[in-house]
Amino acid sequence: MQIVEIYDTTLRDGAQSEDVSFSVEDKLRIVQKLDELGLHYIEGGWPGANPKDITFFEEMKKIPLKSSKLVAFGATRKSRNKVSEDPNIKALAEAGTEVVTLFGKSWDLHVTEALGITLKKNLEIISDSIEYLRSQGKRVFYDAEHFFSGYLAKPDYALKTLEAAKRAGAECIILCDTNGGTMPWQLREALEVVQREIGGSLGIHTHNDSEMAVANALTAVEIGVTQVQGTMNGFGERCGNANLCSLLPNLKLKMKINCIADDQLKRLREVSHFVSEIANLPHNKHQPYVGDAAFAHKGGIHVHAVRKNAETYEHVAPSKVGNRQRVLISDNAGKSNLLEKAKEFRINLASDSPHLTEILEQLKEREHQGYQFEGAEGSFELMMKKALGKHKKFFNLVGFRVIVEKRKGSEETFCEATIMVEVGGQVEHTAATGNGPVNALDHALRKALEKFYPALSQVKLLDYKVRVLTASDGTGSKVRVLIESGDGEKNWGTVGVSENIIEASWQALVDSIEYKLLNS
Amino acid sequence: MQIVEIYDTTLRDGAQSEDVSFSVEDKLRIVQKLDELGLHYIEGGWPGANPKDITFFEEMKKIPLKSSKLVAFGATRKSRNKVSEDPNIKALAEAGTEVVTLFGKSWDLHVTEALGITLKKNLEIISDSIEYLRSQGKRVFYDAEHFFSGYLAKPDYALKTLEAAKRAGAECIILCDTNGGTMPWQLREALEVVQREIGGSLGIHTHNDSEMAVANALTAVEIGVTQVQGTMNGFGERCGNANLCSLLPNLKLKMKINCIADDQLKRLREVSHFVSEIANLPHNKHQPYVGDAAFAHKGGIHVHAVRKNAETYEHVAPSKVGNRQRVLISDNAGKSNLLEKAKEFRINLASDSPHLTEILEQLKEREHQGYQFEGAEGSFELMMKKALGKHKKFFNLVGFRVIVEKRKGSEETFCEATIMVEVGGQVEHTAATGNGPVNALDHALRKALEKFYPALSQVKLLDYKVRVLTASDGTGSKVRVLIESGDGEKNWGTVGVSENIIEASWQALVDSIEYKLLNS
Repeated sequence: MQIVEIYDTTLRDGAQSEDVSFSVEDKLRIVQKLDELGLHYIEGGWPGANPKDITFFEEMKKIPLKSSKLVAFGATRKSRNKVSEDPNIKALAEAGTEVVTLFGKSWDLHVTEALGITLKKNLEIISDSIEYLRSQGKRVFYDAEHFFSGYLAKPDYALKTLEAAKRAGAECIILCDTNGGTMPWQLREALEVVQREIGGSLGIHTHNDSEMAVANALTAVEIGVTQVQGTMNGFGERCGNANLCSLLPNLKLKMKINCIADDQLKRLREVSHFVSEIANLPHNKHQPYVGDAAFAHKGGIHVHAVRKNAETYEHVAPSKVGNRQRVLISDNAGKSNLLEKAKEFRINLASDSPHLTEILEQLKEREHQGYQFEGAEGSFELMMKKALGKHKKFFNLVGFRVIVEKRKGSEETFCEATIMVEVGGQVEHTAATGNGPVNALDHALRKALEKFYPALSQVKLLDYKVRVLTASDGTGSKVRVLIESGDGEKNWGTVGVSENIIEASWQALVDSIEYKLLNS
Repeated sequence: MQIVEIYDTTLRDGAQSEDVSFSVEDKLRIVQKLDELGLHYIEGGWPGANPKDITFFEEMKKIPLKSSKLVAFGATRKSRNKVSEDPNIKALAEAGTEVVTLFGKSWDLHVTEALGITLKKNLEIISDSIEYLRSQGKRVFYDAEHFFSGYLAKPDYALKTLEAAKRAGAECIILCDTNGGTMPWQLREALEVVQREIGGSLGIHTHNDSEMAVANALTAVEIGVTQVQGTMNGFGERCGNANLCSLLPNLKLKMKINCIADDQLKRLREVSHFVSEIANLPHNKHQPYVGDAAFAHKGGIHVHAVRKNAETYEHVAPSKVGNRQRVLISDNAGKSNLLEKAKEFRINLASDSPHLTEILEQLKEREHQGYQFEGAEGSFELMMKKALGKHKKFFNLVGFRVIVEKRKGSEETFCEATIMVEVGGQVEHTAATGNGPVNALDHALRKALEKFYPALSQVKLLDYKVRVLTASDGTGSKVRVLIESGDGEKNWGTVGVSENIIEASWQALVDSIEYKLLNS
């Protein structure tokens, strides 16, 4: 059976993504998660280029990994330095890892233009950098940067650089599509030549600039490389690196290559979300395998078929990657969808209940008005409970007023909300400001209600979305507001629709609060 | 030279994406943009399944397209219906398009499990549905749904369905990887058999569930298919469809297949952003070719090398897809863009003008704050004119106040705006109501200004869009408001950004009015 080892570079190449900036603490947390996932190698950083990474490798000396090997990454020596005195090489030697990955130049353009040295000198640099680290007892992987562009431009020279690396003792030579412009058939052609002319243990490192990173990596595996490099969620400079969250299930489930254990693959979705969370980036809902929409069914035909037999519209079982099937609530939904939702919400609802038709009618009517419950299951649950008489009113609105003022000579626009609510015969009248009208109203409402319901102080608004529904009516259009709230334990979405954005926001705010109070 | 025709299904399959919901107005705007991009076929919708789509096809009868052909999509007839009486088939015949795409079942599992009919009956349905539409004078494309899964399960039967479609008169047979689980080598194997056994004109329709949609489509083109289906930005159910924004440049720049003109390819980035904007979805910054980060260089080494020679870290020239290199320092590409815009706006601006740098700086600063001028060229023109001292102030705001009130016992939320403006020493103080706060403010502002500038009575607000910019701050997030206005002769877009939606709307309203007054 073909053996393929997984090499993660989320913490190094992934950190070069425009929006990603990991602290040392972030990196320590991620490396341990990746270890649990069972990836063979984890590139931790570039100690010679980044002081933060030196601290990281220091910290890592105290943290044992269960299944992964930590790798330090860096460049071959600078042309003006003796290898034993090159600060980058020294930092690599001292990083405390068994394995070091060195990258060097394979493309003559980079050697002469970017480095400004002769082609011969570059070969020497590759050789003695590797030899030195080998002499320090390191296992060395060699990243042939821009190999495919270099091979296109000057194949003989590109191959010579690999030969130099191999002769100097590199254990694995990784061919890099650094600019991400290589097509699978070009990659295949070059790789087959390398196998023939250089041989030995080869790896692949691809970028996604042509949306080919994963396909290129798999093509290389098909041809026989034994190491695949990539990042979680495809993080990386420009368009990112090969996405391990797609590569791992493709390798295991499609190519039947046993790179990580079944139980580890089941944690893929969790780790993918964890990494996004630490990077403080929204998780891409449409991401293959691990995205929230990856197994979500909306079209009526699809929902109907998938409920009869999931295989009809699912290429793999979602549980294999720790994901789940989601049937989206929409007017295509039938009674069986509703029953399933009721079960999820722990609501008793018999399949012959007359309420079922009533709820379905209400759902259709609401969607016709512009409501959308796909991102607002909180509002949907409330709607269901109202229909079943399981809802309770927690407060009565006496009235609110929102005022927005702008005055000559002031850059600021002033926002104030006043509100009067009644709870159990007691009236609370209060006011608050905010940096927008909805923000002011939200502040005032919470201020009034927290007095009666202290649990509300845990609730935070996490996201607020506005969508104008009908164009071509100018500012008279209907708007839909989606709010996501959370209390630290769980998140819930609520929705409001109106021609008036304040009214729409009010509906969603009220649902958010009622949801919390009903479920605590 | 190989001919490949592009078939866009953004408005049908793309609209099945979890977050996408196009209005008829949205679809009319998008179809015209896609036409400008020169795509051969545009699938407009499914008139048999969706009343909104019937309206869309009615409207399209009045709108001639320059280079694209509009296509109506639908299912083969229901098994219980005579083909001439099947409502879906009738809707297709009446949609007013020269071309119709019919989809049918190729996978025995779907025939017996989802449809619950015999395999033979399914062949009859495919045949007579196509024959009927042919008899109505339609050109028919046949989408073989789940072809690759069907071929794996029962190859003989899958091929028989294609044979039936071809014999019945389908002009092109499109092989669909509906579940998105097929690997390129599986696709190749099946496709080569189809070429040999069925032949004729073939197309490819892929989904991205294994992150293989684009790679699979290109593999099919390499083998010889002549039609490629996909969506803008890869919109589509679950993980989306093959992304035309990657496919088009890969076909043209990598495979040298002349599917659209060079000038059309240069508009790719613009159209990609336009479609996201209309869908009210953030554009994916890391999207290949068209994303804002696709040619952005962060790593120090990269920036240095790329400035010496862009080829070192860019696989294609960004200008070919209308994108640009982003490095920290302003560059010449930016200036020449501005000069081109100035020409468009009939503004004299010399290429060595010091204003040029100033405008560029302002533009960057504004974009950093969240402004976006792609849908707001009106605001951009005003910004340029202000920098050049060619702008004139038409009125001064003394102040405005917007009040929103809700009272117990009333369903209605009341909105009123009061405003005081000064024009040439004369003060106008007025008030108006509206069905939302922005609507009320818009009414009041016009009412005040029309007295001085009667031309404003021609101006109508055509569209109003709100986008929340930074998530995770709840209702305290920044919002961007885009307004489209028209006076019957031309339309113009304006933009405003603020934490306060009223302030953001105000900026866009003021720009809209100033634009009209400056240009009349």
